[in-house]
Amino acid sequence: MSNVKALPLLEPEGPDAVAPCCPPLSERPFTAEEAERTARMFKALGDPVRLRLFSAVASHEGGEACVCDISDVGVSQPTVSHHLKKLKEAGLLTSERRGTWVYYRVEPSVVAAMGQLLAVR
Amino acid sequence: MSNVKALPLLEPEGPDAVAPCCPPLSERPFTAEEAERTARMFKALGDPVRLRLFSAVASHEGGEACVCDISDVGVSQPTVSHHLKKLKEAGLLTSERRGTWVYYRVEPSVVAAMGQLLAVR
Repeated sequence: MSNVKALPLLEPEGPDAVAPCCPPLSERPFTAEEAERTARMFKALGDPVRLRLFSAVASHEGGEACVCDISDVGVSQPTVSHHLKKLKEAGLLTSERRGTWVYYRVEPSVVAAMGQLLAVR
Repeated sequence: MSNVKALPLLEPEGPDAVAPCCPPLSERPFTAEEAERTARMFKALGDPVRLRLFSAVASHEGGEACVCDISDVGVSQPTVSHHLKKLKEAGLLTSERRGTWVYYRVEPSVVAAMGQLLAVR
């Protein structure tokens, strides 16, 4: 994320576009734009396979995992890759290629901010 | 919810079936069943209109709102009612009929538990 400073503050697309923007859901009614941005993150976790994959990455030794580490969610490796990419697009995972494999890691700031959205007053 | 005691502990369907069941997503990989139950709650908030409605209810005076209170999300009243029912089915809202209107209220325990799922270790 060291290149963030070079980007405009309002980036229309890309992982940063779905970074949490918003106060807790109970503070005031969300605007349409806030809801669009935030719903993408919830939607990413709204699929059972993606949720298992997210949990597999988040709980994996060292806090990261590659497709090679994940074999027990009942879907093919290409499907695993597809869903990991979706989670990355939603800003919930980051990735880094090392040799043959892409390693995924939870983006703690985004996940923590999602938790904040759910803070009940 | 006073009839819960009369129900079996593992209820296959209904609002209670989607009540949070599970440890933080980063504690250990979710099982298929845990992911099924939990994904339903995230999916309910994964739609921009539903997210705005949830926010409208959660932030409304007194912590509750009826369809009659919500007019500015750009969809028809029947659509509002439809989405509020979906949020209720996901366990995120409770409802109570009073006179002509059904009033919706955030179920704080379920929302708080969703926040707990996102606790990053």
